[in-house]
Order: sequence, then structure tokens, then C-alpha cells
Amino acid sequence: MTCATLDSRFHTSLFFKCENFQKVGAFKSRGAVNAVYSIDELESQKGVATHSSGNHAQALARAALLRNIPAYIVMPENAPKVKVEAVKGYGGKITFCKPTLQSREDTIKVVMAETGAMEVHPYDNYTIIAGQATAAKEMLEDTGELDLILCPVGGGGLLAGTALSAHYFGKNTMVIACEPLGADDACRSFKAGKIIPSVDPKTIADGLLTSLGKRNFPIIQKHVKDIVTVSEEAIIEAMRLVYERMKLVIEPSSAVVLAAIIESKVQVEGKRVGLILSGGNVDLKNLPF
Amino acid sequence: MTCATLDSRFHTSLFFKCENFQKVGAFKSRGAVNAVYSIDELESQKGVATHSSGNHAQALARAALLRNIPAYIVMPENAPKVKVEAVKGYGGKITFCKPTLQSREDTIKVVMAETGAMEVHPYDNYTIIAGQATAAKEMLEDTGELDLILCPVGGGGLLAGTALSAHYFGKNTMVIACEPLGADDACRSFKAGKIIPSVDPKTIADGLLTSLGKRNFPIIQKHVKDIVTVSEEAIIEAMRLVYERMKLVIEPSSAVVLAAIIESKVQVEGKRVGLILSGGNVDLKNLPF
Repeated sequence: MTCATLDSRFHTSLFFKCENFQKVGAFKSRGAVNAVYSIDELESQKGVATHSSGNHAQALARAALLRNIPAYIVMPENAPKVKVEAVKGYGGKITFCKPTLQSREDTIKVVMAETGAMEVHPYDNYTIIAGQATAAKEMLEDTGELDLILCPVGGGGLLAGTALSAHYFGKNTMVIACEPLGADDACRSFKAGKIIPSVDPKTIADGLLTSLGKRNFPIIQKHVKDIVTVSEEAIIEAMRLVYERMKLVIEPSSAVVLAAIIESKVQVEGKRVGLILSGGNVDLKNLPF
Repeated sequence: MTCATLDSRFHTSLFFKCENFQKVGAFKSRGAVNAVYSIDELESQKGVATHSSGNHAQALARAALLRNIPAYIVMPENAPKVKVEAVKGYGGKITFCKPTLQSREDTIKVVMAETGAMEVHPYDNYTIIAGQATAAKEMLEDTGELDLILCPVGGGGLLAGTALSAHYFGKNTMVIACEPLGADDACRSFKAGKIIPSVDPKTIADGLLTSLGKRNFPIIQKHVKDIVTVSEEAIIEAMRLVYERMKLVIEPSSAVVLAAIIESKVQVEGKRVGLILSGGNVDLKNLPF
């Protein structure tokens, strides 16, 4: 998608990759499908497992359903009903746990021991990274050459994949990651040269709270040009612009890329810029504008 | 756009024509551009005029700007500031009037007398109807054969155009119009065989409040199969589904077509059905869900 109003305002050519239109409403479907179909036939019969309360759980359940194998999803007992129903709707087998990381990890170990299912981590996994890479690959195929791709960063699955696609399929296409200032662990990790865990992040962009994965970080270090941070105000302003001007429903995490342009954190004038809108799963009753 | 969830729920194949993505956020751009470019060169220099507080005013101002001729827009003095600014943004010359139909009509007569501008009515105008017809024409070109097209009806510009396109470019493509029960003048007119004016309409679908135009009605009588009415609850439910499942921002008037399917007012099972989403200009601070 393009938007003449935004191009004119920022003196640039913006190309939006609309992962809000993706299955389950987010890019997570790409990695999940690739991960599920990367498992060999025999192993796959035991199924896949993850602990997640978010889009990855739905995406993995759906991918497993496509391949007709079981998906075991560990979810905290306080997970929103709509997300539980969505996982069930895709045939996912849910085990509830206490809403702590410890309980999640303990519970998934039990589930895996009982079933022999293979864990599919939401981002710290090479087949997941390769799957998420297809978003930027498609964007490059659709738009032709891009000078720059802006990508949100949470755990780094989408960002590592995007950076790999830009490197292997782009022509001098630079990747800059965008992150909320209130959850700037990726930016700090990038500058420090080692993973600094996310502690008590505070941002409306609820898809970007996690720490970088071990497999993701070296790829990001090698192929990402910079990581910039944006304010909550800019995220909300960007979200409003996309709803009002582009008529797209996006989640706050998607808005960090346009927020970076609004706050002049990246130089886009005269360039061809790809922006990855990562998803559209938002509580419509609580829009921030 | 298509939506697997909706297709599965209603056992049908739905094709959505997204006029919310159209310039100025609504199908009105089509008619306005066609009307402005249909005026001969000499006549066009005097400009075009309309009295409107809605999307047509913006669309006409934009079309006039494209042709580099003046657009004189009569707007009620209580028109929302955002709409006034939008018209100004396209270079429209605004004359304010009292917020009554009488004052609008008196004022535009003065403006036309002073300028020699040609009035372009928002729907009761053949070049407008022909312009709006291009939405259904494009949909037929994009989707192949359709059994049915569902279209909102207000003044009848979009509906008359859609019916003409279905007749001339479709293959036995039936057109059914959808209207809020609280503004059912078109339905009653259709059944009575004469135009019954809209009196005190009450609906959230604020683009569908107007009465049918004189030029529109005979086309609708001849080429529209039926006009069905939908409840406010169904309009809101349809709107929510489109936001949640399709990630599209639409205005309530757009939602009447899906509302008719939700309320089983039209038989769509096993059919290929086109739905025209007429626009996306909505007050995001006052979403009804």
C-alpha cells in the first residue's frame, strides 16, 4: 500500500507491507508455517508446542492444522478469552498454567515430555526467522529497489528475517529497526554489543516487550544498520495517521516504523522506503485516540 | 479484498470493492472527476459549484484542482472544521451559509450567478452516475463473473451506476441495494413506484440519509432487483467484523451490505457476491463498538 498524503508530507516514497492482512492478522503466520513444514515427516507426527499468549500461539495452531499435526499450546490461565477461543478454533490443544514465565516453562516441559512434541519458539528459531524473512522478500519483489526498510523489533524474529532478505534480495537496501523508547532493550543491546534483557518495559506497543533472541542478535548485529527509538506520542500519532489516511486497522507495534519518520529519527527524504506493518490485532474498544 | 473467515461463516464467496481506499476516502471521487472532465473546455473555465458538507465537496474540489479550474463550495457554517480544512486543502473556494437546505440553495444560486460556475449535484447528475459506475465495472473486471452485487443506497448515485455496470458489463449479475431500516425511503420508493422523500431519517449510516434523485430513480427501477433494509445492530456488527477480521477502516454506510448478509436479507449461499464498501471517512473517536 502507498499513501500520497504521507509521501507528500514527508517528501519520500513509502511502501507499506500490510502484515495486518496476513492470516491470523500478523506476520507470525509466516514463521509458524515455515517452522511446521520444516520438520521431517516422522518427527512432525508428534506435533509442535509453544508457550505463548499472543499471535504466535494462533499462528502455530493454524500451521499445525494445515499440516494436520497436533499443536500443544501452553497459555497462562488469565489469557484473554478471545485468544483462547482463537487457538481452540484452529484445533490447538491448550494446557493452562500460572501467569509466570517459570510456570510456562515448567508446564511446556511436562507437555513435551508427555507428547514428544517439538518446541517452536516464537522468534529464537532459524526456521521462524526464515519464515518472517518472506515479508521483506515479497515487498522487494513487489516494489522494486528500496533504499531503506523500516522494521519493528521485539524478539527479533521479523527484524532478523527482514535484514537477511534485504541483504540477499535487495540492492544496497539498508534496514533500520524501530523500537519504543519505553522498551529500548534492542537499541541498548545493539549499542552495547551484547543482549541486554528487557526489564519492566512500558509501551502501548504490546508486541514489542520481549528481549532479543540468542539466534536473532548476531544476524541483527551483522545486517541491521541502526536501531532507533520512538516516543509513545509518536506511536499514537502514527497509528492515527494510518487509520485516518490509509484506512488500515493496525496494532500499536506496527506504528513504530511511521513514528520513526514522524520524529525524524530516520532520514527518508527523496528515498524509496519500505515499512513493515507487522499486524492488526488490536483492542478496538481501547484505541488510543 | 476477500476474507476466508466471512466466506466460511456465510458459505459464500465475497469480493469487497474497497472505496475506503479511494481518493478522499470514498467513491465520490469517481463521479466528481468524471463530471469535472465532462464539461467542455470553455465552460469549464468558469468552474464548478456544489452545496455539500460531505465527501462530495472534497471530491469536487479535488477534481477541479486536477483540471485546474475553480470549485465553489457552499457549506453550512456549522460544518465540521476537518471537512472545511479538507476542502480548503484542495483549493476549494468556500462560501458559508446557514445550516438549512433553503439557505444552501439560495446561497449556491448567488454563487453561480456571480461566477457562472456549473452546479454539479452529488448524485442527481448523469456524469456523476457514470463516474460512480466505474467501481462496479472495476470489480467485475477484477473478480470475473459475479452472481450478485450488494450496494448501499442513499441518493442513488452509486446504486444507479452500479446497476448500469452490472447490466452492461456483468453476465446475469443481479444488483440488490441495502439501506438502513431507519432511513428506508429508497426501499419504500422502490415498492411504491415513485420517489418518497426521506423524512427525519435516523441511522448511524450518515451517508445514506438523502432522498433518491430524479435521474437515479428510473435507472434503479429498471436495473435493481430489490432493495432490502437492515437494522442498526446489524450495521454495527458488520462494521465490527470488517474492522476485526478484514482490518479495514470503513464508515457505517459501507457496512449495510454485509449487514444484509448477517441478517439473511439476501440469499448468498454458494454464490459469488460483490460488496461495495463505499467509504472510510469515520470519526474514529466515536466508533460504535
